[in-house]
Amino acid sequence: MGEMRRVYLDNAATTMQKPPCVVEAVTAALTSFGNSGRDTGGHALDASRVIYDARCLISDLFNLGNPKQVVFTCNSTEALNMAIRGLFHRGDHVISSVMEHNAVLRPLYDIEEDQGVSHTFIGVDEKGRLLVSEIEKNIRPETKALIFTHASNVTGNANDLHAIGKIAKKHGLLFIVDASQTAGVLPIDMQDMNIDIVAFTGHKGLYGPQGTGGMAIREGIDIHPLKSGGTGVLSYLKHQPEEMPTHLECGTMNAHGLAGLHASLNWLVKEVGIDQVHAHEIALAKRFYEGLKDMEAIRFYGDYDTDQRAAIVSLNIADYDSSEVSDQLESDYGISTRPGAHCAPLIHEAMGTVNQGMVRFAFSWFNTEEDVDYAVKAVRELATDI
Amino acid sequence: MGEMRRVYLDNAATTMQKPPCVVEAVTAALTSFGNSGRDTGGHALDASRVIYDARCLISDLFNLGNPKQVVFTCNSTEALNMAIRGLFHRGDHVISSVMEHNAVLRPLYDIEEDQGVSHTFIGVDEKGRLLVSEIEKNIRPETKALIFTHASNVTGNANDLHAIGKIAKKHGLLFIVDASQTAGVLPIDMQDMNIDIVAFTGHKGLYGPQGTGGMAIREGIDIHPLKSGGTGVLSYLKHQPEEMPTHLECGTMNAHGLAGLHASLNWLVKEVGIDQVHAHEIALAKRFYEGLKDMEAIRFYGDYDTDQRAAIVSLNIADYDSSEVSDQLESDYGISTRPGAHCAPLIHEAMGTVNQGMVRFAFSWFNTEEDVDYAVKAVRELATDI
Repeated sequence: MGEMRRVYLDNAATTMQKPPCVVEAVTAALTSFGNSGRDTGGHALDASRVIYDARCLISDLFNLGNPKQVVFTCNSTEALNMAIRGLFHRGDHVISSVMEHNAVLRPLYDIEEDQGVSHTFIGVDEKGRLLVSEIEKNIRPETKALIFTHASNVTGNANDLHAIGKIAKKHGLLFIVDASQTAGVLPIDMQDMNIDIVAFTGHKGLYGPQGTGGMAIREGIDIHPLKSGGTGVLSYLKHQPEEMPTHLECGTMNAHGLAGLHASLNWLVKEVGIDQVHAHEIALAKRFYEGLKDMEAIRFYGDYDTDQRAAIVSLNIADYDSSEVSDQLESDYGISTRPGAHCAPLIHEAMGTVNQGMVRFAFSWFNTEEDVDYAVKAVRELATDI
Repeated sequence: MGEMRRVYLDNAATTMQKPPCVVEAVTAALTSFGNSGRDTGGHALDASRVIYDARCLISDLFNLGNPKQVVFTCNSTEALNMAIRGLFHRGDHVISSVMEHNAVLRPLYDIEEDQGVSHTFIGVDEKGRLLVSEIEKNIRPETKALIFTHASNVTGNANDLHAIGKIAKKHGLLFIVDASQTAGVLPIDMQDMNIDIVAFTGHKGLYGPQGTGGMAIREGIDIHPLKSGGTGVLSYLKHQPEEMPTHLECGTMNAHGLAGLHASLNWLVKEVGIDQVHAHEIALAKRFYEGLKDMEAIRFYGDYDTDQRAAIVSLNIADYDSSEVSDQLESDYGISTRPGAHCAPLIHEAMGTVNQGMVRFAFSWFNTEEDVDYAVKAVRELATDI
């Protein structure tokens, strides 16, 4: 018996395979970078230059128009915490949705308790699609912001940012987008879509290292810093300098990781193109779905009649626990998936899968049709056995 | 004319050169790790195992006695913010010092303004040594904590943690240590020294990648989380789980960076030994100091009569601006140093160097006697020319 095939399909958690240029850039940085912004030596300048260039690439990717308004954090969770904890005051109200990840939900619960900021969560239909028409009905005089994920990390369904951005603009509300699943995957145009803040992570659709992420922030939006400390400039000020991006960055930057993100952004935007990456990923997701949709024992979650979605297919086999199915896929077939609640409790409540969870398959640029066909065969076998 | 020699002496900002095992570990992680704690696949488990093992190494290094009480952050600044912003209440008072970095000072100024937590800063003598005898005099009924750096990032002077820990114990105060300059350099024994929290960074004396750092926290100390979000477990709880280390960690961990820190910790503790690294570094610092101390135009800052210090030598040449001297060392000699305020304003006020700054030379395991002799020659030339 030969070695078991290994197929990694947990790309919505992290894209395990990175383009070779990312590894090369991190390796070079680890042996040559000083501390960005901390001395005038060539090593420190090398780090600063790469970080600045990464800001430019992010600014361009989201059509922000100002690289100084790009702030780097250790992941999108930190970016979302900064925004949600740093923008509102007692009595404010925000509108969000049941599609959100705990990176949005928990900060919202926290500021409700600590700061008296209330929220309303917009629901979804039977396919998990946001009820966009409910948003306007829930706007109150004290509503300050709309906070929506671009795509659910559970169903893969994407929200119409154009439509939501129009509502935000009409009512003078901040529009904050969690792009954890879509940065580098679906187009995001902050100016065209009236988006004020995009939170992103580096290690998923941007194919960079873990430990990278950040926020693109429209000029003029003042976020109260979550942290303060050394900035390398204006050291005699008692508080964080007002100047961006320093206002929201302190301590040593992760220049080693950002060198990798810089390389992956160049690869993604200039070499391959995000349209092509998405076309490949969504074709694989579709192939997987098509290969299984005739199976009566399988229930799918999400809207598979569109390409404007993340390359995620979530399913259950009869009433089998998603963790058991996922374990069997791993142990018997070498296929990595993600079962359970995916840190997004409310969408599971909406879809009726709190107890069962779902088995999530998520595809990347580095997956192949052979990977998909192998996974289809595996799931068919499991769904037939029962 | 041959290529100019390049000597990196800004190791107190970041150790530029890393042991080869660090690069190898990060490279391997970048091509094999899933998302720690996020699925049951081998790739995710690989990441989880390395992170857990890194917690064990940190727990051992500081004699904490419980790896679950080791929390990873993106740098020591974040760790210090978590501790300082998450422990105190209105009316509390803390004692700290003028030796502190802005990573301590700015959070203290912020909580004074936002939360009504007051502070007293203990001063230093003419050599920049902490006036330990002043600590007890400043303890009030509402004093809750002593927060001290282990060693100044400006003078290199180290504080006597044993002595301060005894005061903390006697008065029932929390003892928080900023070990940014000393983790992996000088011994830190949390149990023996009565330390409650050690904040550390990965990319200086621990020789790991940037983007890594954290806190070792004595059991039973409850820090209110600075951030909340996905934890991979207990997803249906509205707030961060109480269990450590999850209580203070959310979102995707920087497993790629932590793989490097794990490798550097193994190298540092098990292969080379921190005593040997410190002996090498301090011998270089001493050689540098001895090579220059006869120069009348040079003023040194700090206490050079002891080995219990960080391998830092800070100086000025006559009344020349430190940035000009540092620039000249870089451009004419290829020597990287750090001029200015070093994000530590109060020690510069104490030493009378607010306007001039200081030129800081900091030595690492990867520096050689030749590096030192070259730097001595360079500084002598600059100090003679004027």
